[in-house]
Amino acid sequence: MVHNGIEYGDMQLIAEVYDLLRYGAGFEPARLAALFEAWNGAELQSFLIEITARILVFPDADTGTPLVDRIQDVAEQKGTGRWTTQAALELGVPVPTLTAAVEARALSARRGLRLELASQYGGATRQDDPALADAARRALYAAKILAYAQGFDLLRRADRERGYGLRLDELARIWTGGCIIRARLLDTLRATWRSHPDGEHLLRAPDIAAVLGERIPSLRVTVAAAQARGIPVPALAASLAYFDAMRRDRLPAALVQAQRDFFGAHTYRRDDRDGSFHTEWAQG
Amino acid sequence: MVHNGIEYGDMQLIAEVYDLLRYGAGFEPARLAALFEAWNGAELQSFLIEITARILVFPDADTGTPLVDRIQDVAEQKGTGRWTTQAALELGVPVPTLTAAVEARALSARRGLRLELASQYGGATRQDDPALADAARRALYAAKILAYAQGFDLLRRADRERGYGLRLDELARIWTGGCIIRARLLDTLRATWRSHPDGEHLLRAPDIAAVLGERIPSLRVTVAAAQARGIPVPALAASLAYFDAMRRDRLPAALVQAQRDFFGAHTYRRDDRDGSFHTEWAQG
Repeated sequence: MVHNGIEYGDMQLIAEVYDLLRYGAGFEPARLAALFEAWNGAELQSFLIEITARILVFPDADTGTPLVDRIQDVAEQKGTGRWTTQAALELGVPVPTLTAAVEARALSARRGLRLELASQYGGATRQDDPALADAARRALYAAKILAYAQGFDLLRRADRERGYGLRLDELARIWTGGCIIRARLLDTLRATWRSHPDGEHLLRAPDIAAVLGERIPSLRVTVAAAQARGIPVPALAASLAYFDAMRRDRLPAALVQAQRDFFGAHTYRRDDRDGSFHTEWAQG
Repeated sequence: MVHNGIEYGDMQLIAEVYDLLRYGAGFEPARLAALFEAWNGAELQSFLIEITARILVFPDADTGTPLVDRIQDVAEQKGTGRWTTQAALELGVPVPTLTAAVEARALSARRGLRLELASQYGGATRQDDPALADAARRALYAAKILAYAQGFDLLRRADRERGYGLRLDELARIWTGGCIIRARLLDTLRATWRSHPDGEHLLRAPDIAAVLGERIPSLRVTVAAAQARGIPVPALAASLAYFDAMRRDRLPAALVQAQRDFFGAHTYRRDDRDGSFHTEWAQG
């Protein structure tokens, strides 16, 4: 089931990068196909990147133009991505990249409304930038790692809750065989989990930290380029927010706890002593 | 129930703006309290903004420093925000701002892990910018409208599905009385829904379009400022992606449909003719 959540995330991340490069930065389908094919020869090698390259040059029989341009932009779903998010919500595990992918599909279904809003508000803007291809490639790899980190985190929690006795390195191995998400990254992750079988989180592994340290700046550049152009990148942006929040020693959740205690006397914990506390804030 | 989803969104959006201004742009708590108090005199007027201003100057009895700085940054939840996201997932309605707020609370709970990752990766950076306060105010209002738009969209869909006979203007009126989300915006929304009782979506209303048209650029600036500093703004970024996707006449969901048809023969629809189609992509 988590496999399908990651699959949704992987597909959405690829779709966002395609969207940004094509409609935001002026890359034509044939050039994009060549780009994805080149990407498929290195760290991004995966079944989904490979088929994306092939899709982008597949012609419509009638017009000879790319068939993808004739396909209605409504992504359907059979519910398996949604189940991952639902399970994550119940276990209290954040999987924002996977969730953003599920919500992006639901949003795409509002096609009639979108067309009306497009005339009302105007759409995205294009600003050609050949250098964006390389930033996007590195951003995609970083975001993909963050999506897998979320998926493995969910599996780890479910395993601890229910005692499945999962071995994450074995799971990474199984996913390389015939699964839709098969990818070179899974070989890396298999090795990572084998070296850290009890690791609490993928981001703690030094080899992953080294890879992310190099690529997060490109993720930041890519998200900024998309947002400046009005190209929606919900899954890329959610991946960046996940990284920035997970490596934060102090989140504004303290303010949220204060608000909850103010209006509902829900109490709060303190950093400097044990116990639950309540304050009569209105008397301040 | 949707009330609580919006409440989660509202609280998270305020928390993100607070976080950006305080730790990203150098605003001290007393200055922020004065800022929120000023905001509470205009379009952002609301119970949650009012109590935020009061919280930020409430002193810890022992040290005299702001009590909020002693509160553990782990936001708890009783599940009501989660139910909204779960209902939205089942009805296929995208509510990404509300969902991001729920996931942000779950993420905050990983405090031990966050502290470890903070030493490993380093944290956010600060770059003072007094002008950011005004952009943040306008961004907060835009994002709040987008959060309400999502909540009302969910209500509308649930109403149609289950035949509650909801009147959205009446609901907006009810929420102004004693509810945690009571706010001046609800008076505006009440008038909007009264003028457009059968409106499909809040973003279609001309008065809302005018307000958003003026404030979306500030939302873009604010999100970019946070991401450049490494301050996580999942709910603000999700609001921006929601706007950009909802006003897009062509989403990369077409590529996702092509991928689904490639690997699973799930078929696709075309823009130019009726019916379901399948392509033998691998033979291209």
